[in-house]
Amino acid sequence: MNNYMIKIQYDGGRYSGWQKQGNTTNTIQGKLEELLGRLLDERIEVNGSGRTDAGVHAICQVANFKTSKSVNCNELILKINEYLPQDIRVTSLSQAEPAFHARLNAVKKHYRYRIDRAEIADVFERKYALHLPGKLDVEAMKMAASVLCGRHDFKSFCDNRHMKKSTVRNIYKIDFTEENDMLIIDYYGDGFLYHMVRIITGTLIMAGQGKIDPEEIKDILVSGDRKKAGELVSAHGLFLVEVCY
Amino acid sequence: MNNYMIKIQYDGGRYSGWQKQGNTTNTIQGKLEELLGRLLDERIEVNGSGRTDAGVHAICQVANFKTSKSVNCNELILKINEYLPQDIRVTSLSQAEPAFHARLNAVKKHYRYRIDRAEIADVFERKYALHLPGKLDVEAMKMAASVLCGRHDFKSFCDNRHMKKSTVRNIYKIDFTEENDMLIIDYYGDGFLYHMVRIITGTLIMAGQGKIDPEEIKDILVSGDRKKAGELVSAHGLFLVEVCY
Repeated sequence: MNNYMIKIQYDGGRYSGWQKQGNTTNTIQGKLEELLGRLLDERIEVNGSGRTDAGVHAICQVANFKTSKSVNCNELILKINEYLPQDIRVTSLSQAEPAFHARLNAVKKHYRYRIDRAEIADVFERKYALHLPGKLDVEAMKMAASVLCGRHDFKSFCDNRHMKKSTVRNIYKIDFTEENDMLIIDYYGDGFLYHMVRIITGTLIMAGQGKIDPEEIKDILVSGDRKKAGELVSAHGLFLVEVCY
Repeated sequence: MNNYMIKIQYDGGRYSGWQKQGNTTNTIQGKLEELLGRLLDERIEVNGSGRTDAGVHAICQVANFKTSKSVNCNELILKINEYLPQDIRVTSLSQAEPAFHARLNAVKKHYRYRIDRAEIADVFERKYALHLPGKLDVEAMKMAASVLCGRHDFKSFCDNRHMKKSTVRNIYKIDFTEENDMLIIDYYGDGFLYHMVRIITGTLIMAGQGKIDPEEIKDILVSGDRKKAGELVSAHGLFLVEVCY
């Protein structure tokens, strides 16, 4: 079997997320598996680096698939992009080591959340940023974020109540960038739990709005209680930016 | 009658252009007139600074309307944006001089055309830039553009064959900016003819692709022959950026 690594960019707006679910073909994984199966004339399973939820975008998702066929990468990528809908593009396709697995081998992930702080929402950002006018103390958000960096049990920031595996993750860095009215929050970590980036963002927003004290973040973290953290912010502001191996 | 100036941002993708046409309500002007008529309870005519074609976007279109009602601008703009679809926003609303007319008083316009030169189209730019992979000599485009700057008869670059008014316009400046794979062309002039920016862009692209010599631009200009100029490029890469008074 040959093993191939693909990089995928997608606008998640129309999709039910990365991962195929039963009969739901309206997923990125579903679209890719169906198309690759047709082009390679055999059943293809595409392993993503991780799920992205319904509505979440990817600047660069990584996946791998195995096939008994020998593939001309340059030709196949052209064919794939010819048949994919315009809101999904495969940006790279290359042969990988036989043991490469996009999820198991991922060592670092970078997510981005975008917040449009303009009084009146920017029309061209309406699908790619959360519109949040009004007071927002970015310095308080940075203080709150600094408490979350490092290796912690992020159970309070996870929506999977039946999570049996470890909820310990390492956040390497949370960066804030302001470009005019856009506030961009970049999250780098060894991995993220279900809804974790969006719950953390919701919590940082609460700190920015003065609804919680940045000091309280430590308590929320230690409590292990999802109800103490902020609310889940909308998926349409979230991007998977990069996966490192 | 009170006279009001409004600034409007819109994603033109879903619309048949700025100007209402008979029964077509699917225009920006149509949407605004219908909504303002309803909110002010009288027939409202909205005069735009100029038409934008179907699919063309506006970062800032300017218009004015008259009403017998006295308007609280802060309240009205909130109401307008509450009822407008999310791909149209009124970004500013203020009382204007009684004689102010958005089209007649405009002295300078700024349009932008965006070209995505990446081999594989950027998913997030698919609705806001022309995807044009392959060789493009931007220096040749700049040379061609320099010939077009200044006061000329732009008949060759106009799709209205029955234009009775003057086709003389003054292009003050054409700027090129490259941001990664994106080529941005900014046009500044005292006004632009029907399809003029898109035909000029198509002609500059021909120069960039080596299909015409930048020297030939002068001949095309002098000929007054539309067939000699380049083809009309797609509307979805074009933005009305600013109108000056």
